[in-house]
Amino acid sequence: MKLTILFGGASFEHEISVVSAITVKEKLSSFDLSFVFCDGDHKFYLIDADKMKATTFSKQLHKKMPELTLTNGGFLQKSFLSSTTHTNTVLNLIHGADGEDGTIASLLDFYDIKFIGPRKEACTFSYDKRYTKYLCDAIGVKSVAYEVFSKDAETNLSLSMPIIVKPASLGSSIGVSIVKEDSEFDYALDTAFEFDSSVLVEPFIEGVKEYNLAGYMTDGKMHFSIVEEPQKEEFLDFEKKYMDFSRSEQVSRAKIDEELINKLKSSFERVYRGMFEGALIRCDFFVVDGEVLLNEINPIPGSMANYLFEDFPASIKELAASLSNAKRAKVSYDYIHSISQAKGK
Amino acid sequence: MKLTILFGGASFEHEISVVSAITVKEKLSSFDLSFVFCDGDHKFYLIDADKMKATTFSKQLHKKMPELTLTNGGFLQKSFLSSTTHTNTVLNLIHGADGEDGTIASLLDFYDIKFIGPRKEACTFSYDKRYTKYLCDAIGVKSVAYEVFSKDAETNLSLSMPIIVKPASLGSSIGVSIVKEDSEFDYALDTAFEFDSSVLVEPFIEGVKEYNLAGYMTDGKMHFSIVEEPQKEEFLDFEKKYMDFSRSEQVSRAKIDEELINKLKSSFERVYRGMFEGALIRCDFFVVDGEVLLNEINPIPGSMANYLFEDFPASIKELAASLSNAKRAKVSYDYIHSISQAKGK
Repeated sequence: MKLTILFGGASFEHEISVVSAITVKEKLSSFDLSFVFCDGDHKFYLIDADKMKATTFSKQLHKKMPELTLTNGGFLQKSFLSSTTHTNTVLNLIHGADGEDGTIASLLDFYDIKFIGPRKEACTFSYDKRYTKYLCDAIGVKSVAYEVFSKDAETNLSLSMPIIVKPASLGSSIGVSIVKEDSEFDYALDTAFEFDSSVLVEPFIEGVKEYNLAGYMTDGKMHFSIVEEPQKEEFLDFEKKYMDFSRSEQVSRAKIDEELINKLKSSFERVYRGMFEGALIRCDFFVVDGEVLLNEINPIPGSMANYLFEDFPASIKELAASLSNAKRAKVSYDYIHSISQAKGK
Repeated sequence: MKLTILFGGASFEHEISVVSAITVKEKLSSFDLSFVFCDGDHKFYLIDADKMKATTFSKQLHKKMPELTLTNGGFLQKSFLSSTTHTNTVLNLIHGADGEDGTIASLLDFYDIKFIGPRKEACTFSYDKRYTKYLCDAIGVKSVAYEVFSKDAETNLSLSMPIIVKPASLGSSIGVSIVKEDSEFDYALDTAFEFDSSVLVEPFIEGVKEYNLAGYMTDGKMHFSIVEEPQKEEFLDFEKKYMDFSRSEQVSRAKIDEELINKLKSSFERVYRGMFEGALIRCDFFVVDGEVLLNEINPIPGSMANYLFEDFPASIKELAASLSNAKRAKVSYDYIHSISQAKGK
């Protein structure tokens, strides 16, 4: 099966995307893969499969490879005498800005390119953690209490310590702090404001049980991964998460009963259905007093959460086969025709 | 002042956008305008100002004009020997799909083109009326009660007649019906499902007072239009709305007291701030028993609601001058560098 891995992006998670792409390349070695890199200047390059290593990008060697532009149906490669359009289905593996904020989804839909990944509305509701809360409240999925702080407004903190402070729209723990004393709060807020003008503050629940579940839908039917209980350190900082993004070894199932697994799946499906079709996502849940709370939606999880699936290549194949192109409204000129006729023009 | 009017789009409101662009051309005759048309196949064309009439498009004469493609910084025009990039600020005047659903916003931001119009998140919350309700509930702005019907799920109607049935994501009254008898409901639902797989049903409030208010923000300060009480026919069907979109005569102020005007402005600002920056939007409100309810957000109102502004050209000029380019995250390779150094590579 042919598939184009799209990675990079003008994002704080650019390097993570590079690592993710290299990992997915290994996991999908049975596929006929090609690689399109989006650099920090929003230029696209076709990357040789055997040049898929981190130093290709850190040393800017990609600039010597063929440049691509978007065109109806695919990525256009022009050479001196000819031009080729690369029309494969795309796996959107750009984490953070561009990939998860709806930009890439809009571009691929506009240019009529099939892709695995969240659609633009799904991006709005998962990229900014405030809007994830709006969604949860609207569809009746429980989540952690929160307060929003904004760069240009004074707000008083009502939550009591310890708290966790997060930029509203970043993943991979960038800019996130756990605050235990009032005196540390301002510094944590400033750190988060470096990455976003809106910041979310939530209670930090010490020793909370955390479970991750990934899944996708084909033909209206959900397919779930195993449930993982991620190993706990207070939280993963950027460097640890970075290493985590290259994970490729299968993890072991969380030791929880069927009832809890079903609760997690039911919350997951309520979030997914009608919103995330076309994407393989990972939801991270907390369980507090037997109650399932949605912590975060990862609409493009690191290395596609390959390690949670029993047969990752089969899952990607199945999802890719179920995709359809974006529908375009048919344009008509009925009213203009009838009005110009009425005017005798 | 230079400005590019972007219009058309693969949208059921394509013709309305053409009419809107022709009207705005007249209202901004003091500007140095250029015109970029997006056709139903998502191709862009540079349109001669003196060919800006409806029949140019209904007769497909635009296909003889220069084709443009998106490139970093603007629209690229290639001719046999040279190429030009049109870098003007853009006024996004594509109504409905493409223009109001976040696609065009994503494209212009990705290619680093300044534009007047809603950003992608703002589009998500205004294009789909379900998400407008999510937003209202989250920020404490009152709106009309509603129920959602989905093409692939059986739902029972709890609201009592009369009701209004609307496709979730279309403007300009397309697919909208007022239903007074139970027997008419299924037909109205099917009509709406022709345009969207999700349909909103709201109580139809007979004789409700309706007020429209437009506005925009520059440097954190709101600028409002006059308040209009739109002339009432039960609602405007597509043909009447179509004519309505070419309105260019100033309307008279609604005869309401200062207190109500302030209530409308306060609701408007609560919706706008932190979400619609960069756009000139129109909010349509109902007033029931002195209470202001948000009915609809028009993030790209027909002919930019020019008829509501005392000095429309000055407003557009002021808004255009306040725009900034989308921020791109700076890409670094710090982790890759440090890891490859640690590995001795």
